[in-house]
Amino acid sequence: MRHILIFGAGKSASHLIRFLLKSAQSQELHLTIADLQVSHLDRFNEYSDHFTAIPLDVADFEKRQFFVKQSDLVISMLPAALHIEVAKECLLYKKHLVTASYVSPELKAMNQEVTDSGLIFLNEIGCDPGIDHMSAMETIDKIKARGGKMLLFESFTGGLIAPESDNNLWNYKFTWNPRNVVLAGQGGAAKFIQEGSYKYIPYQHLFRRTEFLDIDGYGKFEAYANRDSLSYREVYGLSDVKTMYRGTIRKIGFSRAWHVFVQLGMTDDSYKIEHSEDLTYREFVNLFLPYHPTDSVELKFRHALKIDQDDIIWDKFLSLDLFSRTKKINLKNASPAQALQKILMDNWTLSSEDKDMIVMCHKFGYELNGQQKQIESTMVVIGEDDVFTAMSKTVGLPVAIAALAILNGEIQTPGVIIPVKSEIYVPVMKALEEQMISFNEKEVPYTSYNTLHL
Amino acid sequence: MRHILIFGAGKSASHLIRFLLKSAQSQELHLTIADLQVSHLDRFNEYSDHFTAIPLDVADFEKRQFFVKQSDLVISMLPAALHIEVAKECLLYKKHLVTASYVSPELKAMNQEVTDSGLIFLNEIGCDPGIDHMSAMETIDKIKARGGKMLLFESFTGGLIAPESDNNLWNYKFTWNPRNVVLAGQGGAAKFIQEGSYKYIPYQHLFRRTEFLDIDGYGKFEAYANRDSLSYREVYGLSDVKTMYRGTIRKIGFSRAWHVFVQLGMTDDSYKIEHSEDLTYREFVNLFLPYHPTDSVELKFRHALKIDQDDIIWDKFLSLDLFSRTKKINLKNASPAQALQKILMDNWTLSSEDKDMIVMCHKFGYELNGQQKQIESTMVVIGEDDVFTAMSKTVGLPVAIAALAILNGEIQTPGVIIPVKSEIYVPVMKALEEQMISFNEKEVPYTSYNTLHL
Repeated sequence: MRHILIFGAGKSASHLIRFLLKSAQSQELHLTIADLQVSHLDRFNEYSDHFTAIPLDVADFEKRQFFVKQSDLVISMLPAALHIEVAKECLLYKKHLVTASYVSPELKAMNQEVTDSGLIFLNEIGCDPGIDHMSAMETIDKIKARGGKMLLFESFTGGLIAPESDNNLWNYKFTWNPRNVVLAGQGGAAKFIQEGSYKYIPYQHLFRRTEFLDIDGYGKFEAYANRDSLSYREVYGLSDVKTMYRGTIRKIGFSRAWHVFVQLGMTDDSYKIEHSEDLTYREFVNLFLPYHPTDSVELKFRHALKIDQDDIIWDKFLSLDLFSRTKKINLKNASPAQALQKILMDNWTLSSEDKDMIVMCHKFGYELNGQQKQIESTMVVIGEDDVFTAMSKTVGLPVAIAALAILNGEIQTPGVIIPVKSEIYVPVMKALEEQMISFNEKEVPYTSYNTLHL
Repeated sequence: MRHILIFGAGKSASHLIRFLLKSAQSQELHLTIADLQVSHLDRFNEYSDHFTAIPLDVADFEKRQFFVKQSDLVISMLPAALHIEVAKECLLYKKHLVTASYVSPELKAMNQEVTDSGLIFLNEIGCDPGIDHMSAMETIDKIKARGGKMLLFESFTGGLIAPESDNNLWNYKFTWNPRNVVLAGQGGAAKFIQEGSYKYIPYQHLFRRTEFLDIDGYGKFEAYANRDSLSYREVYGLSDVKTMYRGTIRKIGFSRAWHVFVQLGMTDDSYKIEHSEDLTYREFVNLFLPYHPTDSVELKFRHALKIDQDDIIWDKFLSLDLFSRTKKINLKNASPAQALQKILMDNWTLSSEDKDMIVMCHKFGYELNGQQKQIESTMVVIGEDDVFTAMSKTVGLPVAIAALAILNGEIQTPGVIIPVKSEIYVPVMKALEEQMISFNEKEVPYTSYNTLHL
């Protein structure tokens, strides 16, 4: 019997847990699932022989250690900042660790010790980061093996609402942490390289510098640039590539409307609003508009943002009830971002029958035998409902599959690692395909931004 | 003989030093002037009996202490972050301290010890902060003494170029630290209150939310909001005032053009540009514009920023040689803000005969005997040349005058203080008037933003 300890059993872990429980018999697994609340684990009662639910506050140091000690492998689905404490205990008690989060500098610094202990601390093995790394490296390695020289790599991912549940004007609902959506793009300029030219986009321009994207069978989407595309050049072994861009996918028109919030300062999380708890939505909006004793908040909003009478964008704001005189923020010491999140959650929360959708798209431009070629590779995953979401599936299944591959000795190289080597991506991508997470690859004409050469 | 030790003898200290040296005989003063370089103090050679120039690196702890010990009062004109070390030594050796900088939290925390030692650490006694505090409090106290109730306080200051030297399209030159000009407004939303309504302006909108301002004899100006107007309510005893606004003055049109740099992200100081040293000005601008193989940087710039063919704003950018194919940034690891500063310094540096100008304007709205009234108070100071600037005069003279007033026992209340009490502002404002720094006060109709009441 192999013991897997899972920290954090929230929404994002539903597929992870179900997959491991379904495999429990054949793989001889027992799961210990620790979370602040465990009552929602009732939904897995048919597998009750195979897991133990433990109510646990991660701040409870002793209890945490007790369970780490008893396990063979630890999966942390906790907020990223909490991984480092779990990692220290895994090192102490010689346990493997799997997370879906970015490697923090603190975690990276443990690499030597982890390697010396023969342990595997595998991170960034969720959806993005995770499936993006693996699917990209699989194709890049294939192109290189054929003798191709990589010229261009662009990668786009979006957590969206499925077409059958897409029933608001923003074509968007929260399928993941709403706070991250409100703060998206903050904390530094977006950086990428295009045809050898470095490009930098500041936050205040980010949502107006989108580009369009076609996904077979799903139509046109838009994407805004992720913060750092440059550091991936080294990670992917693409240091001399001419174009490297990573972006976030939205339905068309979302970004132009979101830009209005950015311009007004409503996504700012750096200060607290005075008397925020008493504000109506209307008064909240008015904080960011010039004072006038009689002009309506609506007209000031339209004027400041130059929104024409016949622009459908206006109806997007109306649909949020942004100018309500009765609905209140009801949050003490809220930042603008927190107040905006409250308003959006009224409108963008998944209902129980809503389905989400993950879209991922890569473009690989390369030169082979003097010819410029391109592969486009896309993945679309639709959720089952508001618990077994596509987000939870694409994050949780790679984690679960990789955890099994470590226990079964398929993944062996020790260290603080991410899934960019074939030892990891081959078995994981194969198992994901069996779970209906797969990419559709096709040859397309090379995307030369340098149209003079065409 | 009283010994004054001055740390920092750069441009901003020219008037301070000259004033104290002129008073040296009658006031029985000896100055010790410490700076990294002291060769430029040659200009004061006619007063060589009254001062000693000391080449000193402020990091030289022992030498610094040696001179603090020998003085009666220390004036620190160093960058604000360095005051705290000097302050600790002043406390240790029981010396008074005068600075023109904002009181840092660390300095504020020393208040009890400073008070117990009977010492005076007087700060914020330059121009802004300094003359603004004193001139505002003088009028506010006068209005309150008459039985008036303050309703509105607005205060504007600008370091500008004098009309006779105003010969570029931006109507602006660097008369103070260029870096502060490039970074102005960053680090948080501007906050103020207008007719009882809180207002917040994010950096990305700051330079488009200006208001106009008339200064008698000097025409129209514009002002953008300072970061924090709200905290001044308490400092000035105006906690229940309905309108409180502080702003920075520019010549009309400056802010709208500056906003273009903000939008593009050229004022960002949070990251370093790759290969910045090799970039031409043109290539630098192109970093912030979409890639295109043939469209000119000029057209992409105009298009992204929606600059019409017939808009004079375009000539402002041309005048900076922003699209030069030959001029280079020539700075390693430069942030966008540092690169932009380099370009602007080519164009906006004072020539030796250029004169600068300080403009300050206060609006005091109040109610007296049931009537709404308003006082407008303005100060304009013109510099002599590029060394004896208006900036140096309005910063340095209040410091010098206050230092003398402390030595002569006119200012006696100990502690870490700022000049908002009559004990300080009365003698200092009187002495400033003798130096031709004075306000022109007039009654005007009350500025009600609430026009329904008119």
